[in-house]
Amino acid sequence: MKQKLRGVFTPNLVPLDARGDINEDELRRYVDWLIAGGVHGLYPNGSTGEFTRFTVEERQRIIRIVCDQANGRVPILAGAAEANVKETIRACELYHEYGATAVAIVSPFYYKLSPESVYAYFREIALNSPIDVTLYNIPMFASPIDVPTIKRLSEFERVIGIKDSSGDVAFMCRMINAIRPLRPDFTFLTGWDVVLMPMLIMGADGGTNATSGIVPELMRKLYDLVMAGRQDEALPLQMRILEVFDAMLYSADFPEGFRAAVELRGFDFGAGRQPLSATQKVDRAALQRVLQCILADFGVVDAPLEGCAPRTGNIEQDKVRQVTDAVMARLRDRGVV
Amino acid sequence: MKQKLRGVFTPNLVPLDARGDINEDELRRYVDWLIAGGVHGLYPNGSTGEFTRFTVEERQRIIRIVCDQANGRVPILAGAAEANVKETIRACELYHEYGATAVAIVSPFYYKLSPESVYAYFREIALNSPIDVTLYNIPMFASPIDVPTIKRLSEFERVIGIKDSSGDVAFMCRMINAIRPLRPDFTFLTGWDVVLMPMLIMGADGGTNATSGIVPELMRKLYDLVMAGRQDEALPLQMRILEVFDAMLYSADFPEGFRAAVELRGFDFGAGRQPLSATQKVDRAALQRVLQCILADFGVVDAPLEGCAPRTGNIEQDKVRQVTDAVMARLRDRGVV
Amino acid sequence: MKQKLRGVFTPNLVPLDARGDINEDELRRYVDWLIAGGVHGLYPNGSTGEFTRFTVEERQRIIRIVCDQANGRVPILAGAAEANVKETIRACELYHEYGATAVAIVSPFYYKLSPESVYAYFREIALNSPIDVTLYNIPMFASPIDVPTIKRLSEFERVIGIKDSSGDVAFMCRMINAIRPLRPDFTFLTGWDVVLMPMLIMGADGGTNATSGIVPELMRKLYDLVMAGRQDEALPLQMRILEVFDAMLYSADFPEGFRAAVELRGFDFGAGRQPLSATQKVDRAALQRVLQCILADFGVVDAPLEGCAPRTGNIEQDKVRQVTDAVMARLRDRGVV
Amino acid sequence: MKQKLRGVFTPNLVPLDARGDINEDELRRYVDWLIAGGVHGLYPNGSTGEFTRFTVEERQRIIRIVCDQANGRVPILAGAAEANVKETIRACELYHEYGATAVAIVSPFYYKLSPESVYAYFREIALNSPIDVTLYNIPMFASPIDVPTIKRLSEFERVIGIKDSSGDVAFMCRMINAIRPLRPDFTFLTGWDVVLMPMLIMGADGGTNATSGIVPELMRKLYDLVMAGRQDEALPLQMRILEVFDAMLYSADFPEGFRAAVELRGFDFGAGRQPLSATQKVDRAALQRVLQCILADFGVVDAPLEGCAPRTGNIEQDKVRQVTDAVMARLRDRGVV
Repeated sequence: MKQKLRGVFTPNLVPLDARGDINEDELRRYVDWLIAGGVHGLYPNGSTGEFTRFTVEERQRIIRIVCDQANGRVPILAGAAEANVKETIRACELYHEYGATAVAIVSPFYYKLSPESVYAYFREIALNSPIDVTLYNIPMFASPIDVPTIKRLSEFERVIGIKDSSGDVAFMCRMINAIRPLRPDFTFLTGWDVVLMPMLIMGADGGTNATSGIVPELMRKLYDLVMAGRQDEALPLQMRILEVFDAMLYSADFPEGFRAAVELRGFDFGAGRQPLSATQKVDRAALQRVLQCILADFGVVDAPLEGCAPRTGNIEQDKVRQVTDAVMARLRDRGVV
Repeated sequence: MKQKLRGVFTPNLVPLDARGDINEDELRRYVDWLIAGGVHGLYPNGSTGEFTRFTVEERQRIIRIVCDQANGRVPILAGAAEANVKETIRACELYHEYGATAVAIVSPFYYKLSPESVYAYFREIALNSPIDVTLYNIPMFASPIDVPTIKRLSEFERVIGIKDSSGDVAFMCRMINAIRPLRPDFTFLTGWDVVLMPMLIMGADGGTNATSGIVPELMRKLYDLVMAGRQDEALPLQMRILEVFDAMLYSADFPEGFRAAVELRGFDFGAGRQPLSATQKVDRAALQRVLQCILADFGVVDAPLEGCAPRTGNIEQDKVRQVTDAVMARLRDRGVV
Repeated sequence: MKQKLRGVFTPNLVPLDARGDINEDELRRYVDWLIAGGVHGLYPNGSTGEFTRFTVEERQRIIRIVCDQANGRVPILAGAAEANVKETIRACELYHEYGATAVAIVSPFYYKLSPESVYAYFREIALNSPIDVTLYNIPMFASPIDVPTIKRLSEFERVIGIKDSSGDVAFMCRMINAIRPLRPDFTFLTGWDVVLMPMLIMGADGGTNATSGIVPELMRKLYDLVMAGRQDEALPLQMRILEVFDAMLYSADFPEGFRAAVELRGFDFGAGRQPLSATQKVDRAALQRVLQCILADFGVVDAPLEGCAPRTGNIEQDKVRQVTDAVMARLRDRGVV
Repeated sequence: MKQKLRGVFTPNLVPLDARGDINEDELRRYVDWLIAGGVHGLYPNGSTGEFTRFTVEERQRIIRIVCDQANGRVPILAGAAEANVKETIRACELYHEYGATAVAIVSPFYYKLSPESVYAYFREIALNSPIDVTLYNIPMFASPIDVPTIKRLSEFERVIGIKDSSGDVAFMCRMINAIRPLRPDFTFLTGWDVVLMPMLIMGADGGTNATSGIVPELMRKLYDLVMAGRQDEALPLQMRILEVFDAMLYSADFPEGFRAAVELRGFDFGAGRQPLSATQKVDRAALQRVLQCILADFGVVDAPLEGCAPRTGNIEQDKVRQVTDAVMARLRDRGVV
């Protein structure tokens, strides 16, 4: 019998080499590290994985590498959205061959489509895909998938779940309320890391959480605590994860903050595909220092040599402070001040 | 020592008589019924109470009646927003005299103000109000109050809490995370009934929930179950409350759906101040029938005589069905079909 | 026969005295100055006039003063929106007695109403007002009035026009296209000063333009040039008015930038009703200096003594520059630098 | 010396054959027809051309075919946005070889980027493209390009203009005001067909107008009338074009309404790449009948055999009416009624 998708899935970032190409060795090392960190599954070619910034061939290669490296240790949810229905179905076929467990397909983007068009799009895929399909709702980036549409699509056996990145707990409740009675096997995953705990309590099966690409051990721990009913321990952990998530999400254009953070865990991810201006490069370095301080509090990385100023809760202020302190420290080293 | 505001507060609707004036007898009867139903407090002149549709004198009269009728049995959180800072402070003084426990003041509306202006507005009130002040954040209707601004305002002892109607659980977590360490006595209330359970679990102190004006016994029960850690029983109740809330909120212009519902509990609320078109009147009657069926499931009202069709989860479809069924029933009664 | 409303109407600001009350003398002087400046009419109690920040009695007094002072020299379009339909109709009756030419009524705000509710609201007013009614559409602040609703409302003879502050030229075209064939007498006014010229060319009858409260002579000139078909002269004037409008609108919470500007014309408007934080006061002073430089270019005010730095087109940069220059000038005066 | 891009450019739709592939013969015939219809240029791979729904290879083929078929008769503005900067520059190189006049590059989409990132993206392209670049601002679909960013980018000689689909005349004025003094050769094109006339009057150089793909002769005429200063004739034409544009844009998910319309001009465009539900197919047929009636008024197509009901201005009502009338006509033909 098919296993329901459950737990924490990592929408993994993709490391690049000096020429901007996929760094396969580092990607394989990263996959191993994530699995060792305890994540329940991987979700390559998600939004965090910058799927739109790769070519078709590169997207295929990413799935092939991740499936190969995971080698059955954890399920792979493969992002399979392509330019149109025909191309997307082709990707479904290919990723099925590669050994992916299921695909995740984002609602059509660029054009903002009506629910009827969203339905027609996924219906065609549901009828033709050789692999199970997870809908992917991310209304800030793509055409929204509303509850009636999800309900209609849940009539196709091939559609086995939804990954929702709205962050709206009420919306999650509405989905579960509408669909679970008809399809108990339907999987509900949240992409909003800061509410993983309440989502799980209200009935979600897990999450596809970018933060688990940075601190897999902590996201796994949060999941385990909640599932074990140890909410008193889970709550403060969830609250602290909020700080690191917000810092990564709101301090740079997504997902650059996550790229800056993963390097602190000992990986070389290279320069991203979206170029940074000179100002942004300075800003990224400051953010990285703040993130190092936050992660040091969790004990997963060392604090910077010159120490960490107390954080204010306002990430922009904290970035400025870190830069100032670092400059002062260097000046002191040189005997200038 | 001051008691922290906790539990379920009802933002009560206001019954009107045939001339459109405040129906004082019915309002007093309604206050008694709500208290008997178990709500922890009342919140007159909230958004549900249509405060903007009353005159200054009427808003004062509503607070006077509610304070007088409650007579100390439950705390009163009095909505006190007026045209400008001076008038608002005057209302604070008056409601203090009336015996209100605290006031709730919505962020400036109509104009969309910057955080700095929102701060300046509440600062002036905090410095001059003789009664404790609860901030009221409702970004869909008024200038948003962001976390840094709430933090700055929490430095005033007079500001004792926030009532947030964003419905965003992550935002609630951010507020609690930022302010509770500095002000453990600060109260966090949610105005979004469908996520009362997860909000409480994440640390909120209670809610100002319009649904408690319709089914006070159920909202109280939900609160008690969650606080007692009986989440297995709370979860299905929260899920069912979602259905009634959504039906009341999304099927008519707010708060007309709630007015239609409260009549089912045996109150005469009269025609609202916002006129209805002919079409809207028909629609309201259909909604009321659907609501009667939903509430009948809870056992708090009787089902309609002609029974209830199975609900589809799509309130618009259900309304049409109810109307059709009612028409058919009458035709059958008359031997036409 | 009734005269159609045409031309430039000033939504006048309201001067306050040291205690924050209406400064009647200054208001009367301002009315005279505006009429002398050539505006075709006045529009007290508009959004620029901060109608929501006054009490009912103050709103009445504002209309009474403006009608009295204008004394028939120009038509008065009186903002008459009150808490509900009954109160609004009462205001219509009163302003009719005061001698207003017509009233302007903003769509219901705070609650976001559906087109059907917007229709029901204005229908009730149209059936009961003794004075002609202009609809007021300002979707950024109030429930939007869509074209089908305007068309339905134009069936009431009492509804004689619309004042639209969407700033959308295409929307203006849609309104004119839909309604003018049925009601050639219907008036279309735009509240978006930076597109007065294209709006007039596409068929609008005029505007209610806050900028005309600051530079009445220039807005009148722009109107006259466009109506005379002298577009070559109108275009550069419209483009330059854009700079002053943007500076006033986007550099402070509306309408504080306009209050800062009108003082440059020799009026004492006092502190506004919305309090300013310490930071905002500094910022307002900087803005005022930039505005003085912009207006000096038009020759309507003198340049600051220490002169004007070249403007960058980025108002925030310009504000900083002005402050720096002023500080440097004073330091030089004192021989410090 | 380089010729500035001016006039009406058609963002051409792409005809598909029965298998869903590019129908090259029909595309070539369409290019000829558009040029014969008087458009000043072609803009393949625009939003109307559904560039996101084609593969990289197909996008290249479309440019190759259009360049080849136009064969220098009109300038080609080639949409060149690809997955990332490197791929986009590669497309620029290729389209330069194909003989395109310039490329148009939409701001990064899917992710919503900050102005700084938008700048960094286009800067990289400006420094490396061998062909002139037009920025493409379409804030409803892609990251917005604000005026300060456009100004910064106008410092690169390679950036020769902007195509703006915001539809905001004030925004156009702001751009022209900020950039034309520094770069008199910079081209401003509007993608919002219903305000082509006011845009041209305020200084725009032309438009990339989807409507010109349906009625090239009318959009050309509108342009010529405005440029000749014959505004009295231009105004009613612009107003009538509004009706056809609105019908095509708002009655189906973009650009399906335009696909339905172009078939009325005698082209076989085949089924689109975005699948239609059964309901949508019925709706599309109804829309096509309404469009036929609208276009028949212009004399560019024949009216339907069963004639045209008077239009109400409400396209949804008109669609229902057309369907009903057509059914009744057929029933009458068969002697049923």
